Amino acid sequence: MPERGDHDIGTINSILDEALICHVGFVTEDGYPVVIPTIHARNGNTLYLHGSPASRMLRSLKGGAEVCVTVTIVDGLVLARSVFHHSMNYRSVVVFGRPREVNDQEEKLRALEAVTEHVAHGRWTDARRPNESELKGTTVLAVDLDEASAKMRSGPPGDDDEDYELPVWAGIVPVATTYGAPVDDPRLRRGIEPPGYATDYQR
Amino acid sequence: MPERGDHDIGTINSILDEALICHVGFVTEDGYPVVIPTIHARNGNTLYLHGSPASRMLRSLKGGAEVCVTVTIVDGLVLARSVFHHSMNYRSVVVFGRPREVNDQEEKLRALEAVTEHVAHGRWTDARRPNESELKGTTVLAVDLDEASAKMRSGPPGDDDEDYELPVWAGIVPVATTYGAPVDDPRLRRGIEPPGYATDYQR
Repeated sequence: MPERGDHDIGTINSILDEALICHVGFVTEDGYPVVIPTIHARNGNTLYLHGSPASRMLRSLKGGAEVCVTVTIVDGLVLARSVFHHSMNYRSVVVFGRPREVNDQEEKLRALEAVTEHVAHGRWTDARRPNESELKGTTVLAVDLDEASAKMRSGPPGDDDEDYELPVWAGIVPVATTYGAPVDDPRLRRGIEPPGYATDYQR
Repeated sequence: MPERGDHDIGTINSILDEALICHVGFVTEDGYPVVIPTIHARNGNTLYLHGSPASRMLRSLKGGAEVCVTVTIVDGLVLARSVFHHSMNYRSVVVFGRPREVNDQEEKLRALEAVTEHVAHGRWTDARRPNESELKGTTVLAVDLDEASAKMRSGPPGDDDEDYELPVWAGIVPVATTYGAPVDDPRLRRGIEPPGYATDYQR
């Protein structure tokens, strides 16, 4: 079977780093599931999430609630001869944990650096860094990666033996995330060119 | 503020239809949140999910548990002059509901048609349709779209007034999902060409 779980830490880390965003799941006080998209970043064995102190997600989670953070990279559509065997090629990571709020100013800055660099490598050096009131106005949570696992599928469709004779095209449509030419802010000061990490964006 | 909620049904439907996959959140029996990526499809005011009867997600949900289904399309990286105002341009939909299991054979077939057509428009006509044992081997859940809402951000960064003077490039790096040239299954019968929905894939 091409679909399988994989707990190799190198695989897990590379998927977390390549994925631009994650989906964060938590349970509300009255027991409802909520799933919110947000940006994550990894530093060693720690996954960082951040946001406004007013965010319901961060308020729920900094109270010590359990979290499930899932990232998914879609690599292809798997078009089999039978509807039943259609599938996706993908790489995903699921992280379970109980976040802790990051209050140490130095760790908080390092976490925001990791998030900024996760979005665009080199941006932390260029952009104005958070001042004291912005730091206060940002909640940062850390989730341990001890309970992380990866799952993925790759390769061609797997059809039933008798279906290989059908006159139906089968194969993969590759899927990728692509990054276009940077668009200047209309209020950009004259003479400032976009940096290399924006003109030649890579993950 | 460019970020806002939007409950217009046309907007919600177009985001659900464009997004290839969703992230499904549910709460386990012992109270833990779980978030799993999967393919969804919309038919009118109903969102369909499907999978193996052995899947933990489907077993939890068909028992009547609450679900949160979130889809997210990332449109751009918003690089502001300050780290604090970095953001993403995106369109997302969050659906809350209590799924019902689809047992009616006709609705089940229509749901699987919707899922197949969601992945590749035209595929239901070409591929071998589910037989009786495959239908039995597929669980289909329906979620009402009555409790769906959209949220999105677009446009340039919004920096603090005093930061517009900084010598820092600011703007958008556009993000898109792209679909490559189809790759034939190595076991494809000779003389079968990929269909138009694969060579010229569009969502």
